[in-house]
Amino acid sequence: MMIDKYNKRAKKINSLLCVGLDADFAKIPKHFLKMKFPQFEFNKWIIGETHEYVAVYKPNSAFYEARGEKGIKELKMTMDYLIKNYPDIFTILDAKRADIENTNNGYVTSIFDWLHFDAVTLHPYLGKEALLPFLERSDKGCIILCKTSNRGAGELQDLEVGGKPLWQIVAEKVTNDWNKNKNCMLVVGATYPEEMKKIRSLAPDITFLVPGVGAQGGNLESVMASGLDNKGLGLIINSARGIIFAENPKEEAKKLCEEIRKYLLEHPMSKL
Amino acid sequence: MMIDKYNKRAKKINSLLCVGLDADFAKIPKHFLKMKFPQFEFNKWIIGETHEYVAVYKPNSAFYEARGEKGIKELKMTMDYLIKNYPDIFTILDAKRADIENTNNGYVTSIFDWLHFDAVTLHPYLGKEALLPFLERSDKGCIILCKTSNRGAGELQDLEVGGKPLWQIVAEKVTNDWNKNKNCMLVVGATYPEEMKKIRSLAPDITFLVPGVGAQGGNLESVMASGLDNKGLGLIINSARGIIFAENPKEEAKKLCEEIRKYLLEHPMSKL
Repeated sequence: MMIDKYNKRAKKINSLLCVGLDADFAKIPKHFLKMKFPQFEFNKWIIGETHEYVAVYKPNSAFYEARGEKGIKELKMTMDYLIKNYPDIFTILDAKRADIENTNNGYVTSIFDWLHFDAVTLHPYLGKEALLPFLERSDKGCIILCKTSNRGAGELQDLEVGGKPLWQIVAEKVTNDWNKNKNCMLVVGATYPEEMKKIRSLAPDITFLVPGVGAQGGNLESVMASGLDNKGLGLIINSARGIIFAENPKEEAKKLCEEIRKYLLEHPMSKL
Repeated sequence: MMIDKYNKRAKKINSLLCVGLDADFAKIPKHFLKMKFPQFEFNKWIIGETHEYVAVYKPNSAFYEARGEKGIKELKMTMDYLIKNYPDIFTILDAKRADIENTNNGYVTSIFDWLHFDAVTLHPYLGKEALLPFLERSDKGCIILCKTSNRGAGELQDLEVGGKPLWQIVAEKVTNDWNKNKNCMLVVGATYPEEMKKIRSLAPDITFLVPGVGAQGGNLESVMASGLDNKGLGLIINSARGIIFAENPKEEAKKLCEEIRKYLLEHPMSKL
């Protein structure tokens, strides 16, 4: 099953940590800017510093697309480097894509077969039928936006549909219908722990990608209390800015990883 | 106003036609594949054949991303060529993007400031606050997915929220709240003329991007009857495969353009 790669890595290093490789050109340390491949060299450095604590790396495509074909090339170089050196680390392209039917094949080719990511984030608005080119790839993960971490997420996501918020409808559809190939996950923001608890009850076997810990205000302990599954897995906890642009990225990754380990140790119901 | 460029071009050539530059590598004529820049050369040929009938060109990003950095480079070459030779033709990148807040800046930089598109298509699921980096660009168009042309569009879009379908809520939000900078448009599929009529009544001044005429089964006459605004504008009627992969793209573009002109002529209420 697609998620086995993640679970294996998470158990092996006893960590649920995802580091967001959001190599924002305006924020990476100045000395990288003089190099031929600044985003790639920055990523290589971050990976070297953090990999022992990391179960998942997740670049956000926007930071690479901002530099046109140069950025895309360095994203590809980053993936080639990861696959060669750390093949057991799970990889997600945070691209928030979704087009209709065959048009999605272009994204499938690019993200799964050229860049070789294990999973991608997807918008649900066009429905399951539109997303089939992604969903039919049982070897790859489809991470559907459900309850996102941003302040204004509720504008559409909290709208009431037959007595339930829209995010709940999305969670139910993905869990009960879209997940035929056991390759779906959900994006559930760390900033909404109550909603996360509800989604865990509806989707006991689905892994959540959780952005919003740290810089965006999400609290690690409440995320783990709300979202862990009954095997002590089921969460991919992302931190980007808080680690990669810290004075000492290694220390920050270690710190967050140790907080995750501490929680797991103190809550034996949810032992890895 | 952002939409003036489109309206001016549409009036000048008496056409509402948008040609989708969906340069699918698997479908472009074989002799282009031998060239150094196959997608760019194909696009240049299509533009040469069709421009006199065309108010808008709309590449879909997926077909370029499928080729990695090479495709992105050829998309850029296509835009440079269009801007140099046909600066009054409106351009849309069909990218169906939407991330949260500052992350969108990467897409804004890429699509508006590097590729120099006039407008981009966007998913509404994350809400207005997430999309502000796009919406605040009053010089550029934000085309929000509302009722899409695909068969399964209704799965989420037709869900009832307080007695109204979700697509209506999106149309109302965009029209009455997201459009502060007068730079919003809506995607309304040709395959749903009844919904289009309703959206036109709710959004009398908003331009619709209309995919789904031709290959997907949408009927031109019912689109024009449902969607024209009271100035005989307000529609961007897209055709891609039906034109660019036809035996004779020029003839197909001319044919669709003449059908548009005929309708406008026969319906004086909606004269350009």
